[in-house]
Amino acid sequence: MNIKNDLFLRAFTDAKLPRPPIWLMRQAGRYLPEYKATRAKAGSFLELCRSPSFCAEVLLQPLERYDLDAAILFSDILTVPDAMGLGLTFGVGEGPRFSKPLREESDVHALAVPDMAKLQYVFDAVAECKRALTQDGEQRVPLIGFSGSPFTLACYMIEGAGSADAFPLTRRMMLQRPELFQKVLDVNVGAVTAYLSEQIRAGADALMLFDTWGGVLAPRLYREFSLAPMQRIVAALRAEFPSVPVMIFSRGAAHSVGAIAAGGAQGIGVDWQSDLADVRAAAGPHVTLQGNFDPLLLTTDEDTIRREIAKSLAGFDPHHRYIANLGHGITPDADPALVGTFVDTLRST
Amino acid sequence: MNIKNDLFLRAFTDAKLPRPPIWLMRQAGRYLPEYKATRAKAGSFLELCRSPSFCAEVLLQPLERYDLDAAILFSDILTVPDAMGLGLTFGVGEGPRFSKPLREESDVHALAVPDMAKLQYVFDAVAECKRALTQDGEQRVPLIGFSGSPFTLACYMIEGAGSADAFPLTRRMMLQRPELFQKVLDVNVGAVTAYLSEQIRAGADALMLFDTWGGVLAPRLYREFSLAPMQRIVAALRAEFPSVPVMIFSRGAAHSVGAIAAGGAQGIGVDWQSDLADVRAAAGPHVTLQGNFDPLLLTTDEDTIRREIAKSLAGFDPHHRYIANLGHGITPDADPALVGTFVDTLRST
Repeated sequence: MNIKNDLFLRAFTDAKLPRPPIWLMRQAGRYLPEYKATRAKAGSFLELCRSPSFCAEVLLQPLERYDLDAAILFSDILTVPDAMGLGLTFGVGEGPRFSKPLREESDVHALAVPDMAKLQYVFDAVAECKRALTQDGEQRVPLIGFSGSPFTLACYMIEGAGSADAFPLTRRMMLQRPELFQKVLDVNVGAVTAYLSEQIRAGADALMLFDTWGGVLAPRLYREFSLAPMQRIVAALRAEFPSVPVMIFSRGAAHSVGAIAAGGAQGIGVDWQSDLADVRAAAGPHVTLQGNFDPLLLTTDEDTIRREIAKSLAGFDPHHRYIANLGHGITPDADPALVGTFVDTLRST
Repeated sequence: MNIKNDLFLRAFTDAKLPRPPIWLMRQAGRYLPEYKATRAKAGSFLELCRSPSFCAEVLLQPLERYDLDAAILFSDILTVPDAMGLGLTFGVGEGPRFSKPLREESDVHALAVPDMAKLQYVFDAVAECKRALTQDGEQRVPLIGFSGSPFTLACYMIEGAGSADAFPLTRRMMLQRPELFQKVLDVNVGAVTAYLSEQIRAGADALMLFDTWGGVLAPRLYREFSLAPMQRIVAALRAEFPSVPVMIFSRGAAHSVGAIAAGGAQGIGVDWQSDLADVRAAAGPHVTLQGNFDPLLLTTDEDTIRREIAKSLAGFDPHHRYIANLGHGITPDADPALVGTFVDTLRST
């Protein structure tokens, strides 16, 4: 498939680009009234994720409003443990919850890579999104697929829900029973590798590993229990699909940027609690950085947005191996007009 | 006053020590049944803080159980904004709340360094703690005084409460109205300097600045809005009280350890999401590091505690400018027996 605007993919080469490509984490989200309308039609967040046609509908919404250089599959990172039989639900106004978390040793021994047929709805969504992006035989922008990282999935699988306290049940298993915890990670490595491979076969042009919680660990533990499993996935994908770039986004892991870059990922997501110039110095020149604006900016004003963009990019080359993005998901209180200011300012960088 | 066990204070010199001194953040806390009994007698957490005799009672409790090398004033960081008239309360089972947070520009212009007489109960508690530590004309261990940092206090003063979302109202003022935010910080610098000076006059032998929230900022913003105000306080205290060591504990600010060390603080608190050997490399050899064990360890088992202590201290000299401690406050579910294992293991290091 020919891609009309391939600026995003060219950011994974050493080419000097005329401007940075830009997209936004959770660009199809609750800050957009049209997204809320589709979600209401779908009935719930999970039903939206399970409907390829609704997924394609919300995928296009931000592209209609803003001049963006990539689209991302609409889905959730917890589809994979749900397919493992852990029973995912989202209560009203609550985060995710698993009805059958991993609490006993026997739960871990019963865990296995799920049959990918159970995730066919995700691959159907990828294909439907790909079709929706295609106009006159050309794909408008690249389509990004994604998965949660093995460690981040393990956090939810063991805890059974989100945590205000850095997942104590999960970290206790990691510290007290490292071999048992490694078994969970091993299953997750197999599942995520299969899951992302199928997303590529269904049409994903690039991939992102969301490691939302790896950064709660000290560096030595992050590298052992979060980065190492991601690197096994990256290595497997690069061997089979060498032309599809893979990005790792470990929130709060600026300490290990050098190790992430050395481990084979083509891109590194940078959170808003980092300075881009520091991350570039640690990562070296041959890896692509993505990020890292504070989503809070989209709740301020035009002058603040322009001033903070200039400050964030000081001492950093945004035309070389750089993808402009937020440093965390957009928040529901983002002002859609300010999102326009943000995108336009970065496009003229 | 002669101090019988001054190992803690000697850790602020370049002397090689026979073992690391040890104390625990929140060592007088809810994991101890005797603390809960005193708190019940006092009626509430705030009433406990406001009673010098109850403060002295809970100060001694962990020293009776464990072989610790320092005691810390029992108090709360929010006493200072409370004295500014912001109206501190603690709801049952809730965190702190201010009835009159800083929301309007006029609120900020009305803010002033409080009369230290309003905080006399804290200085009385310092003096009472000092008396309680004294036996046969000798002080058992050094007494640490403390305050919240200007930025951390501003977080609560503007938000009016804790935040699950990195204090959006506070950070919005910082980004949109930096000069107004600086006015809050300036008042806080004056207040904290006066507050800590009075704690020294009342008997504190060392001081700690708890900067719980500075690490939510990107490094460039941390250095401008959190570290710089702390350095003004450190400079003022060092000029007037050169023999009293001051420690800065900025949770999540491992990125700026070099800047903290260069800025004059004699000690740096290290959170559990850092590796001690990395922090030592960034800080250089002439600043004292304190930390950084994961409080979760105190909910595991003896073998895990011993193994993780050994791993955490690998490649690090615990006998030189090092104070063993947790990397965050102890949690209510800590097992008092495991706290003993933890302390004893570190004492034989």
